[in-house]
Amino acid sequence: MNILDIIEKKRDKRELSKDEIQYFIQGYTDGRVMDYQASALIMAIYLNGMTKKETTDLTLSMANSGEILNLDSLNKIIVDKHSTGGVGDKVSLILLPIIASLDIPVAKMSGRGLGFTGGTVDKLQSIPGYRTDINVKEFIENVKNVRISIISQTLNLAPADKKIYALRDSISCVESIPLIASSIMSKKIASGAEKIVLDVTVGSGAFMKNIENATKLAKEMIEIGKLAKKETVCVLTNMDEPLGYAVGNNLEVIEAINFLNKNMPNDLKEVVLELGAYMIKLAGRGKNIQENKEKMIENIENGKAFDKFLELIKNQGGDISYIKNTDKFEKAKYIVPVYSDEDGYISEINAESIGKLACYLGAGRMKKEDKIDYSVGIVLNKKVSEKIEKNDILGYIYANNKQKAENAIKEFKEIVKISKIKTKKIDTIIEIID
Amino acid sequence: MNILDIIEKKRDKRELSKDEIQYFIQGYTDGRVMDYQASALIMAIYLNGMTKKETTDLTLSMANSGEILNLDSLNKIIVDKHSTGGVGDKVSLILLPIIASLDIPVAKMSGRGLGFTGGTVDKLQSIPGYRTDINVKEFIENVKNVRISIISQTLNLAPADKKIYALRDSISCVESIPLIASSIMSKKIASGAEKIVLDVTVGSGAFMKNIENATKLAKEMIEIGKLAKKETVCVLTNMDEPLGYAVGNNLEVIEAINFLNKNMPNDLKEVVLELGAYMIKLAGRGKNIQENKEKMIENIENGKAFDKFLELIKNQGGDISYIKNTDKFEKAKYIVPVYSDEDGYISEINAESIGKLACYLGAGRMKKEDKIDYSVGIVLNKKVSEKIEKNDILGYIYANNKQKAENAIKEFKEIVKISKIKTKKIDTIIEIID
Repeated sequence: MNILDIIEKKRDKRELSKDEIQYFIQGYTDGRVMDYQASALIMAIYLNGMTKKETTDLTLSMANSGEILNLDSLNKIIVDKHSTGGVGDKVSLILLPIIASLDIPVAKMSGRGLGFTGGTVDKLQSIPGYRTDINVKEFIENVKNVRISIISQTLNLAPADKKIYALRDSISCVESIPLIASSIMSKKIASGAEKIVLDVTVGSGAFMKNIENATKLAKEMIEIGKLAKKETVCVLTNMDEPLGYAVGNNLEVIEAINFLNKNMPNDLKEVVLELGAYMIKLAGRGKNIQENKEKMIENIENGKAFDKFLELIKNQGGDISYIKNTDKFEKAKYIVPVYSDEDGYISEINAESIGKLACYLGAGRMKKEDKIDYSVGIVLNKKVSEKIEKNDILGYIYANNKQKAENAIKEFKEIVKISKIKTKKIDTIIEIID
Repeated sequence: MNILDIIEKKRDKRELSKDEIQYFIQGYTDGRVMDYQASALIMAIYLNGMTKKETTDLTLSMANSGEILNLDSLNKIIVDKHSTGGVGDKVSLILLPIIASLDIPVAKMSGRGLGFTGGTVDKLQSIPGYRTDINVKEFIENVKNVRISIISQTLNLAPADKKIYALRDSISCVESIPLIASSIMSKKIASGAEKIVLDVTVGSGAFMKNIENATKLAKEMIEIGKLAKKETVCVLTNMDEPLGYAVGNNLEVIEAINFLNKNMPNDLKEVVLELGAYMIKLAGRGKNIQENKEKMIENIENGKAFDKFLELIKNQGGDISYIKNTDKFEKAKYIVPVYSDEDGYISEINAESIGKLACYLGAGRMKKEDKIDYSVGIVLNKKVSEKIEKNDILGYIYANNKQKAENAIKEFKEIVKISKIKTKKIDTIIEIID
């Protein structure tokens, strides 16, 4: 077997065998297959596609290219939750403590943010003391003790995926359904998940800009899950405007804390409940989706979910006085309200543009090495379809640099579109695919 | 402009502009565009094709990526001849002195062989003393003085083509008509040709295995020639069996010398005359193709062509005593006749297999660094459709290693196919495209 024949086969639109895919992935991981060869093969995959079998073989090969997190010692079904990315997406911070408060174990390795979507690990790190880099033994102990642990990827999970992902980014081959599907699923499988609930975001702030492509991606991942024996449910959710109100690291943590203290923005609530209800279902618990949602609400109302969040933070070294009193969080130097110049209804708040604006303020990283400013970001005051009057506050810019604050105000006003007619709000939960 | 957008455009089957193609070629030549990015773009070109305008822009960009040989000081129309490659192809050695003997200047930079097809420069170097590496000034002086010079590429001609060619080879993207056409034409344009006669070979020993693809390639090159204002004629010739009888460096030189001494194998004669007649025509000389051929024959018969060959060799430092007495050429240690095991007709002598066998004996190089053994090779005794009887000689193996000689005999017997029925010979000249 050699890489030239493999490239030729895919170039000619023939199906690659499991062995051929494995040869490519192993060879690329250990350096026998060169970047430029992987690059040609990936472009051929982009243009000629992959069968479901090929996509699954690719997923499993990538999952097996590095360490695999073994969670068997937990003796429980581990349900993982993953989002294909969004702006203002603090769902994990809220949802996972709720799930753990229902005595369902949560063992989550989470990513750092890159580009305009933020990572859960970065958000947690804005809580002073919180350790995301504990080792696997401690991680598993934590899950045993308090039912929940959220850490960064301390293991070398799916290194082939990392390499291919970076390569795709530098050869204009990102938007390929089989490549996106295998990338997501390989990481989930490597991180020990047995069952997976996927939040497939759709809209301006998501990878998938329209429902058609999001549905394709969801179906592809469900098929991989089936063939790989990892039951998977996809929830398509709207990411055309940011989720909730806050965008930025400690701003989102504060919104998550407020949520667990019963202050629940509608769209965020819908996403949290829907994903959670399916996690509970896949864990083999609860009677039906509706009842599962009610149980989640119950644990928010009775404070158990918030207590679980406190327990999680404390257990990983975080200073819980911040959680109890969010005023303690470091504040941006400039917190500037932005006023509307006209009357009307909010017709659009492009999520990608808001994400990029938050990045510009310092909330995200464009390169892996960039440092994050936890206190900056944007807090919306109105969301799409809400009524607005001239001089009403549209939102707030949180900045640590005056010039940037001023530029951001201008930019923010351009992003928030106002129309005279009330636009229909897109449903937050678009579809369930399982 | 950036390479990601250019890759994306070709990926999405949109036409690249001249500036975009130039950005890619310049960037790749000077290292701003990475191998893996070029690789993705080349695969996208392979799969999505190129318009005639794109192919011409690519050709000219590659031609302009390095030095350009300026032959203006010759004050004559310079007609170049090029073959897309073959086995036993000693046409240049014969044809170019004939042309020069008709007072038409020949200024040829020739390549070294790589893979199973031999290079003219390697063949000339098997003549003791012949200098292929003279500088451009001396090269032009020689053409002025004796009407002919054949040297190796002393200039840095079309470096982008070299880089892309090597890359294509390592990513299974060799067999692409626009990429082959632009590669050939860029080198011709960079080497100062104003008019070009192309020998487009077809068959087992050629790049193009069938007439359909060879015709496509020819038409593509003619179109480039038109757009680039370099009049081009393509002669499609049969390369299903080796051309002439000899395959190997000094063996082919000897066959060329014999040809100029009126010992002309039929197929070789047809190719030499056809290509030559069009060279004369493009040079603005001669009345018609038939008369041009007659003039060439005349100069072989009267010895002028042979004298011109002697002059070429002498002028570049070669020892002409070898040309006058070919027995002086270094001989292989083992010259072994191979006998037929049966009666019948030769039905096939796969040219590629013969080329590879000659390489195995040491006549060619598989890597650029390989050294060539000038004395080894194969000399056929019978060609396709000829009658053969048991114990007749099929051909001779020339080897410098006993084990290799023995292996080659076995292999040679397998390559030369014999059938009971006489197979129809393929025409040597398949088509003229201009």
